[in-house]
Amino acid sequence: MSLIEVTSPANPMVKRLKSLADKKARREEGLFLAEGLRVCTEALEAGQLPAVLAITTEAAAHPLGAKLLAAVLAARRPAMQVPREIIGRITGKDNAQGVAAAYPLPETGLDRLETGTAPLWLVAESIRDPGNIGTMLRSCDGTGAGGLILLDSCADPWSLEAVRASMGAIFSRQIALASGPAFFAWRRARPGQLVGAALGPGSTDYRHHQWQRPAYLMVGGEQAGLPPAYASECDALVRLPMKGTADSLNVAVAAGVLLYHALGQFEPLQADR
Amino acid sequence: MSLIEVTSPANPMVKRLKSLADKKARREEGLFLAEGLRVCTEALEAGQLPAVLAITTEAAAHPLGAKLLAAVLAARRPAMQVPREIIGRITGKDNAQGVAAAYPLPETGLDRLETGTAPLWLVAESIRDPGNIGTMLRSCDGTGAGGLILLDSCADPWSLEAVRASMGAIFSRQIALASGPAFFAWRRARPGQLVGAALGPGSTDYRHHQWQRPAYLMVGGEQAGLPPAYASECDALVRLPMKGTADSLNVAVAAGVLLYHALGQFEPLQADR
Repeated sequence: MSLIEVTSPANPMVKRLKSLADKKARREEGLFLAEGLRVCTEALEAGQLPAVLAITTEAAAHPLGAKLLAAVLAARRPAMQVPREIIGRITGKDNAQGVAAAYPLPETGLDRLETGTAPLWLVAESIRDPGNIGTMLRSCDGTGAGGLILLDSCADPWSLEAVRASMGAIFSRQIALASGPAFFAWRRARPGQLVGAALGPGSTDYRHHQWQRPAYLMVGGEQAGLPPAYASECDALVRLPMKGTADSLNVAVAAGVLLYHALGQFEPLQADR
Repeated sequence: MSLIEVTSPANPMVKRLKSLADKKARREEGLFLAEGLRVCTEALEAGQLPAVLAITTEAAAHPLGAKLLAAVLAARRPAMQVPREIIGRITGKDNAQGVAAAYPLPETGLDRLETGTAPLWLVAESIRDPGNIGTMLRSCDGTGAGGLILLDSCADPWSLEAVRASMGAIFSRQIALASGPAFFAWRRARPGQLVGAALGPGSTDYRHHQWQRPAYLMVGGEQAGLPPAYASECDALVRLPMKGTADSLNVAVAAGVLLYHALGQFEPLQADR
């Protein structure tokens, strides 16, 4: 394949990329959309190549853009040179990036998780906000957590908003989707400490908690928090002190505080002053 | 004033409330919009009464709604009984709440901050995402931080999205707006430790840091982080370990982790198991 120049929003490949804003189309095509030279370069470094690439002349002239484009063409995959407005059409963003690309959706089974690769995993139930999902993936990356296990009816982690909020972590972290019961059966069959974030009875100040590898931190959805039946599956329940008038934190913030607490115990402090 | 029934979206008071989605209108009217019985009840408990209230019949039948409505009517302020679609019109939300209310915009000068009321304050520079601002206010509430000082060109903390994300903390926390230089001059004139979150040279693993009351934690914007000139104003620079491929966290997550670290030092752990 060679680089083709496309200027019409009616071009079938442009329309196909644009359709990936829709979850059903993502499932049918087996593809999701990412945007931005930096994120697509991170994907490339993680060994992931676009199935389809749209790139502006300016982005293709950048060393990273040239490298991305060369990799796509060498793999004989379709690449389009487009004006920036076309990228904006595809991603629905006024202030568009220089690159939009479609990537293959990964498999999402629990049994595909390589749990031996990380001491820490995040499990999240009924998360409605795709921004929270992307932000949690980013925190998993920051703390070296292996990835995110999404239970029950969560927003789609491959939606544009979640991919954007993940800032590239969608490519560096593992993701599994499961029902609560399927997850609990899976985790009972393997080692690991399941720690729930919960405010109800039986939870202790998180600073008391001794994290054990591998640890699975579980958080509940934005509306209702962790269901009692899910809390009862946990080896321990931890809570964050709430000093003000509100009774909870944003779920991605709560997960971030607890992931860093676990990391702090797993990795002794270096004298780095 | 008595409760008036309004069913037309063309009603002038409905249009006035709806106009508050716009920052310019908020400044002109001196009002901002909040929604939801829970949030408006928290405002009431914090001593803040709507300047204008729109409430559905169902919400007015709820004990908290009845109390809110009674308080508004007792203060002789305008209250409208409206169908849920009107609330949706006002707040631009399909799945509308039963209550929308306009509140007076507070003063935002640094000199109005009651810095003696809390040991911890959050300072944020050039935050573009109103959701991040609301989430940071919510974390301030959770950690007992007195509030948020927004530097330079941040998103409006009284936008609907920020108010929503704050989950009521817009009413419980103090907010000031200032330029960077004005803030640095203000803080040099008073006691307090200014701690910057920064990844650059001179920053140490946050776990080394000894927080001193009152502490001002400063974080930089989503795009560029803390400007070097701002970092150089700090008494200390701290960083969070980054174990993955990304070089930063979501700013509200980073602020949350550091606020909880400070709180953990300020408040000795209770034996609560």
